[in-house]
Amino acid sequence: MTTLSPYDNMSPVAQAAYRARSAAADIAPLPRAAKDDALLAIADALEVRTSDIIAANAEDVARAREAGTSESVVDRLTLNPERIRAIAADVRDVAALPDPVGEVVRGSTLPNGIDLRQVRVPLGVVGIIYEARPNVTVDAAALCLKSGNAVLLRGSSSAHASNEALVRVLRDAVGGSGLPADAVQLVPGENRDSVRELMRARGLVDVLIPRGGASLIRTVVEESTVPVIETGTGNCHVYVDAQTDLDMAVAILVNSKAQRPSVCNAAETLLVHKEVAGAFLPLALDALAEAGVTVHGDERVMEYAEGSKATVVAATPEDWETEYLSYDIAAAVVESLDAAVAHIRLWSSGHTEAIVTTSQAAARRFTQLVDSTTVTVNASTRFTDGGQFGFGAEIGISTQKLHARGPMGLPELTSTKYIVTGDGHVR
Amino acid sequence: MTTLSPYDNMSPVAQAAYRARSAAADIAPLPRAAKDDALLAIADALEVRTSDIIAANAEDVARAREAGTSESVVDRLTLNPERIRAIAADVRDVAALPDPVGEVVRGSTLPNGIDLRQVRVPLGVVGIIYEARPNVTVDAAALCLKSGNAVLLRGSSSAHASNEALVRVLRDAVGGSGLPADAVQLVPGENRDSVRELMRARGLVDVLIPRGGASLIRTVVEESTVPVIETGTGNCHVYVDAQTDLDMAVAILVNSKAQRPSVCNAAETLLVHKEVAGAFLPLALDALAEAGVTVHGDERVMEYAEGSKATVVAATPEDWETEYLSYDIAAAVVESLDAAVAHIRLWSSGHTEAIVTTSQAAARRFTQLVDSTTVTVNASTRFTDGGQFGFGAEIGISTQKLHARGPMGLPELTSTKYIVTGDGHVR
Repeated sequence: MTTLSPYDNMSPVAQAAYRARSAAADIAPLPRAAKDDALLAIADALEVRTSDIIAANAEDVARAREAGTSESVVDRLTLNPERIRAIAADVRDVAALPDPVGEVVRGSTLPNGIDLRQVRVPLGVVGIIYEARPNVTVDAAALCLKSGNAVLLRGSSSAHASNEALVRVLRDAVGGSGLPADAVQLVPGENRDSVRELMRARGLVDVLIPRGGASLIRTVVEESTVPVIETGTGNCHVYVDAQTDLDMAVAILVNSKAQRPSVCNAAETLLVHKEVAGAFLPLALDALAEAGVTVHGDERVMEYAEGSKATVVAATPEDWETEYLSYDIAAAVVESLDAAVAHIRLWSSGHTEAIVTTSQAAARRFTQLVDSTTVTVNASTRFTDGGQFGFGAEIGISTQKLHARGPMGLPELTSTKYIVTGDGHVR
Repeated sequence: MTTLSPYDNMSPVAQAAYRARSAAADIAPLPRAAKDDALLAIADALEVRTSDIIAANAEDVARAREAGTSESVVDRLTLNPERIRAIAADVRDVAALPDPVGEVVRGSTLPNGIDLRQVRVPLGVVGIIYEARPNVTVDAAALCLKSGNAVLLRGSSSAHASNEALVRVLRDAVGGSGLPADAVQLVPGENRDSVRELMRARGLVDVLIPRGGASLIRTVVEESTVPVIETGTGNCHVYVDAQTDLDMAVAILVNSKAQRPSVCNAAETLLVHKEVAGAFLPLALDALAEAGVTVHGDERVMEYAEGSKATVVAATPEDWETEYLSYDIAAAVVESLDAAVAHIRLWSSGHTEAIVTTSQAAARRFTQLVDSTTVTVNASTRFTDGGQFGFGAEIGISTQKLHARGPMGLPELTSTKYIVTGDGHVR
């Protein structure tokens, strides 16, 4: 007679989720030292088994090249000893961060003598759906483990061999340090059905975090019954106020747009107060031209195109909502600060907006009225980042209002529970 | 020539949501005094216009009686001058609470000199879907206004006339105090389609909070693309440990079950450690009998039924997952504290679980392992309540892990944003 496992009638995805729940229950109460040991074991194992990982990664890279993938995407997919050392170093950095679990968020003694404590606890099972970069596999697992969660990883099929090799290393290290290996699992199945099943696993999976392009995120947000944390789409604006330091405004504009155009905190639209347009736009267009940026300008911006080194094309309404992620920027002249705010409210994805101003009143009004995860005053939009904010690590940048907003560090991977202690208290 | 309003081609629900967004943008930056003035105006207007409200309420009550509604439901629907005075007093209490908006949640100066501040901001547009009690209309509106949000109210059709009359009073008072009246709106349409539209208004409505029975909450959770805060279902457990004070255990059990059985923090299942079953169950069954409670016992509990005054019936597996909300309780004898935890993990809705113990080790283990919004030690489950916790008000009790968990007060009706201030900082 064979014994039936309780999982025998379940789909592979449901089995993985049940195993993750069980692992999550085991690791939730663990003290920091046990979790840090597992993380340090992971970092060591990544270095020891570098050649296995690179061999698996070479398969993905060869497949990508055969499929005619662009070299920039191939580069993001590629692992080498140096990159693996860097990934291992990141894991050690996560181990060094404070443990959010157990933190007393609120505490008081109620009038009746009851002691009330609100304490941070892990979320439970975290699902991450992500695209090509295999380093996300390790980063996400490390952050989830550190915060006492089990993680279900669903990477892209283009990185499947790499992810399998990495997760094998992670699971061996986790298991070897005495924690349940099922705290780290790759979601089985390479097709869309397994993603769909993950999105419908309400009650088994506590939260889904999609990391990747806008279309991936939209799909997850619309189809998931599991609670989702929306991340990353950034149609960020730089507003240059009537009263401004022109050199500072140019420097912040160019940095926000061109320092790394492919990321979500890069600027995509420039708004210029009409009173400063004449002084600012000629400088700005030249500086953008020098940085290799094409400007998609409204009628009033187009007036400054002639006599400038810049490539300026006429903007269409679509430009106002486009996240270029390239050396392009939309640009418009606005009547007032309030008109800039109205433009941002209409078109922004709510990620990051910057004002460059010397006016305290303008800075105050802009930061009050703009409803985005981050508002910068006289600073580049590129600062919206967990590392820059001093969180030590980042699981993504939430652009939604519930649970977490802006860069998410370890505390954002936790929930809380209340502990009520009395000595026989009744109502 | 007539001017087309931008709302002319929209459904009535979408129009209401757009108006709410606009109102939300207006009230978000308002200082506390402006919001408190509106709340005090609401409280005064409720008292001045009591007879209008009661006249409308009488229609709902007459309709409910004609439809053969039970007297307890009719009682919950009924308004009278005394109850309206109490509702107005609650609004004044909300006005007296601190304003959560603007609170600096985190703040630091980064190594590069940037000042980073994480500040509480309103969520924006809050949708509340609720059942019969018309007092929720005023409570929810007051809490949303105080926290700088606009509110879309969708009450049950059985209270429609009362809700219309109340919202008329609320809007007049809000408008009269200089705030946009559209910050408080009843969702137009009495049929299911308008609820469905509200649930699909992602991007217009920031959060939906269903308040009511389990089936309402399940529908909203499953069908909504708007983020939802799940509230209220409470299959709460009282676990009596091997080492316990018998009298305290009986008092906490009876209070948890019978002080007010119809609410979500009432106990629904008793778990008794086998070592104390012989001493505890005879006392407990008699006390429950005296309180009018029927016990649905497992085999080992049934052994104590004879010779007891209690009504004890054999439990079926469904009893372990039932939220009775009545003078009924499921009861089982367990092998150990860990077996109690396993039972709770399997069947609980994750609302509130109590342990009654004299053992510090048992209290510590139970609070660590039980994953519910609230764990009580030697205190009734009935304490899980915003009022009891000292929050001054409560919009519901969240049983989910994202954003808010447990009783939700004003801070739980807010999000945050980061303000980054530099003096020309670039990366």
